[in-house]
Amino acid sequence: MRAAVFDSGIGGLTVVKSLLENKLFQEIIYFGDTARVPYGVKDKNTIIRYSLEALEFFKNFDVDILIVACNSASAYALDELRANTTIPVVGVIESGVQALVNKTQTKDDNILVIGTKATINSNKYSNELDKLSFKNITSLQTGLFVPLVEEGIFDGSIVDSTLEHYFKDLKNIDFVILGCTHFPLIEKKISQFLNNAITIHSGDAIVEYLKTQYQCNNCFEKTSIKFFASENPNGLKHVAKQWLKDLI
Amino acid sequence: MRAAVFDSGIGGLTVVKSLLENKLFQEIIYFGDTARVPYGVKDKNTIIRYSLEALEFFKNFDVDILIVACNSASAYALDELRANTTIPVVGVIESGVQALVNKTQTKDDNILVIGTKATINSNKYSNELDKLSFKNITSLQTGLFVPLVEEGIFDGSIVDSTLEHYFKDLKNIDFVILGCTHFPLIEKKISQFLNNAITIHSGDAIVEYLKTQYQCNNCFEKTSIKFFASENPNGLKHVAKQWLKDLI
Repeated sequence: MRAAVFDSGIGGLTVVKSLLENKLFQEIIYFGDTARVPYGVKDKNTIIRYSLEALEFFKNFDVDILIVACNSASAYALDELRANTTIPVVGVIESGVQALVNKTQTKDDNILVIGTKATINSNKYSNELDKLSFKNITSLQTGLFVPLVEEGIFDGSIVDSTLEHYFKDLKNIDFVILGCTHFPLIEKKISQFLNNAITIHSGDAIVEYLKTQYQCNNCFEKTSIKFFASENPNGLKHVAKQWLKDLI
Repeated sequence: MRAAVFDSGIGGLTVVKSLLENKLFQEIIYFGDTARVPYGVKDKNTIIRYSLEALEFFKNFDVDILIVACNSASAYALDELRANTTIPVVGVIESGVQALVNKTQTKDDNILVIGTKATINSNKYSNELDKLSFKNITSLQTGLFVPLVEEGIFDGSIVDSTLEHYFKDLKNIDFVILGCTHFPLIEKKISQFLNNAITIHSGDAIVEYLKTQYQCNNCFEKTSIKFFASENPNGLKHVAKQWLKDLI
């Protein structure tokens, strides 16, 4: 089975990591739209247009499934992607919500959703959670975490003051959905600041979701992977080597 | 006289402000490539490609001069832009360097150049300063200032810890070139942290440069302005109204 993984840039590699660890696919074709990253500050129509262009790119490969690793694209472009292909299209939002459902005991839990401007403004997470009768949902744009991670700043005083800036008024958070592929890289700091709230990570969530859908776990001895980027593919490969180490 | 002003997004409005205050033009056509912002994290070839596309856009208007407000585009795309048009093309780097020359007394002054990854990696500022025999030049990528300004965070503990992060090892800076159109919005904080170093602001620098080149100051009673953007032009107009107030 061959999977296409689409992200706005390098962030989707956190999802790829989970996919590789679980050997769900024989091959992964990764495309990062590095020439137009980030999507999270952009408009719905732009994100849809860019996502459809990525789909066109993947049509050059014989892929069996499209995984949209980018939360902003998952928030806005899933319907249009599905309308333009016959293969299954899986986003990180539906799987993130499902992962939360699997972990919660009660609909009264305090759920925090954090993401980029695009993801939060789409209300996609909060609408899904509403439908499932969760009562206490807080949604928050935490856009600054993205450049921090991109700059390789994972702790220290800037991270601390950014956490304080976004989270100072929050109380008793039980679960925090990391609604952006960059956030797993500062997952511990986020959880610690929120009194050890349980984090929901897009990569793990999508693996959980795919396992249920496809009854597959360690199906392939090793997953081979090809990396493509709309600019500087070598930069992407370099980060992939750092993050994915001996998984690739 | 009609000027085209090109920027990767909204940052170029700090340059427009200086142009409007000095009434150098009868009309300004502003284009912000908001659908692909920011340029500062992107590669040379991508920045050149996007800049040439902006030039194509301006060919729909009968403009007399192209002002490249974006430092990253000024760093990489000026030669290619000039090769593809007969009108003068002015960037912020050459004018910024000229503004510095006008203010310094000695080549021994300590000059700090700050900018995005693209601008600093291009070595454009430092090469120009080298040619002019400045002896003490420090170049520094300070990319995090961009999202801070975009988030509307101009002071407080995140700004303070970011200043500390970038500048803690610097001593006795006399002049700091704000090599990114976003930086004037935190100009005072930057100057204060650097013991009141004198700042060079792209907008003021380009006005100074244009006045010398075109012997024009308050030539037009009022400058009319048209705003275009590759996405969400209303968002751009909204910021323009906030920043430029009764100048437009």
